[in-house]
Amino acid sequence: MKIAVRTKESAYKALEREFESTLVNELIPGILHNFANPLNGIMGRSKLLQRRMNEHFNKIKECCPDFAREIVDEQDKLSTDVISICKESDRFFYLFQDLASKFYVISDNRFERINLKKLIENELRFLEFYLDFKHEIKKTIKLTSDMPWIYGTQSGYSLCFSALLRSSMYRMKKSETKELSIITDCDERNIMVVIQDTGAKMIVNTDSATEGDSLLSCNVDMSSLVCVQLLFKEYNVKSVFEGKTGWNRVTLQIPVNRESST
Amino acid sequence: MKIAVRTKESAYKALEREFESTLVNELIPGILHNFANPLNGIMGRSKLLQRRMNEHFNKIKECCPDFAREIVDEQDKLSTDVISICKESDRFFYLFQDLASKFYVISDNRFERINLKKLIENELRFLEFYLDFKHEIKKTIKLTSDMPWIYGTQSGYSLCFSALLRSSMYRMKKSETKELSIITDCDERNIMVVIQDTGAKMIVNTDSATEGDSLLSCNVDMSSLVCVQLLFKEYNVKSVFEGKTGWNRVTLQIPVNRESST
Repeated sequence: MKIAVRTKESAYKALEREFESTLVNELIPGILHNFANPLNGIMGRSKLLQRRMNEHFNKIKECCPDFAREIVDEQDKLSTDVISICKESDRFFYLFQDLASKFYVISDNRFERINLKKLIENELRFLEFYLDFKHEIKKTIKLTSDMPWIYGTQSGYSLCFSALLRSSMYRMKKSETKELSIITDCDERNIMVVIQDTGAKMIVNTDSATEGDSLLSCNVDMSSLVCVQLLFKEYNVKSVFEGKTGWNRVTLQIPVNRESST
Repeated sequence: MKIAVRTKESAYKALEREFESTLVNELIPGILHNFANPLNGIMGRSKLLQRRMNEHFNKIKECCPDFAREIVDEQDKLSTDVISICKESDRFFYLFQDLASKFYVISDNRFERINLKKLIENELRFLEFYLDFKHEIKKTIKLTSDMPWIYGTQSGYSLCFSALLRSSMYRMKKSETKELSIITDCDERNIMVVIQDTGAKMIVNTDSATEGDSLLSCNVDMSSLVCVQLLFKEYNVKSVFEGKTGWNRVTLQIPVNRESST
């Protein structure tokens, strides 16, 4: 990628871009690595403490039963504190995992079988780090529990689904109603995924996706959707994009047999 | 920025780029927000627990002195567990702050007075998230403690220093000796900063930085250094880049008087 260094502003932008380009492969793995140490420490210790404290309370009960009855409220408070620390550190760990999984998945370029339900669920948990998605949008998610495997690269499907869902999020930024639904269905040959949102009308230039050789800016919604279309086409996924006033719908038909996927 | 969507590969890259572009302004703030809740929970509870547990032990000592003497080892273990949780959660908090500070600073575009010592120290702590920087490089840092203020935008200086230090890190990737030193000195008019590394020979095209209108790729080391030069020039910072076999040195002379900075 070539960037014209003409002015102070473009030099500044180029440095910002250079910094950004380190985030996925260097910074985020480093954050996960550095955060893992204290988090593991807290989790390990709090579980150890919980066990030891119970033993301690049992011993008091055994040796000084009168005293134990007297301090039962204090003991409860101490137990509650430890339980709360264990709970918060577990919660932290799950958040940590949501982040780690996403960055693991987008670096996994192997062609392999994919559990699409799990992939979509991971995507949704990861999107909770986008605060608009977490706080502003009402989500209705109905995923078939016994989906067959699909075949492809996790990274590609992850990028496509996250681009689709973020584009819904961006379109709903100014909507009064912010509702997103993801519904799946499947038969022996295909998994159907319907993503619907109540955002501003979606515009997709299907022709250029089909031709696939026009020059497009990928910073705008339209063109990232074009990229999604293009990739899905490569994956033999049939995609239909419908942008209407008041609602938008993306319908995907994903083949489950190994042979037809590339 | 325009990206040609011609092939599956470029669509994939465009989606990666689109995802990357959300990291600085959306994802990282979201990570900090979501992580802050459990971290605050753990910190608050562990401090509360520490106080309550001490009160509990004092009460045992008072009411059942013989029993207290008997369980002194157990009490020590319980105390150690709680102290360890407090320590780990503090450690986590400082890491969290290092990350938050950096993203705060690069979004701060106000022209204001800057404590350069603090800015460089923050940069160095942030760079600990880059694991090569943290684990592989021997750092010698000697910063004058009574530096005068400089005037400028924090974001600009932060981007420049982080680009300089990361470029040292990248150059040392294959070096046998990996040593980085940052030494400052100052008088009434200027702060001098000397950054030296033992990496592969640094190549900087000074002419294009001076002319400032050539087309440069900013993904390679050279051009991000050219961007740094260009920005420093705008800030009235004199910069000298010396690339030699075995060592590289960047010398900066940063004016401290408000009038001469822009």
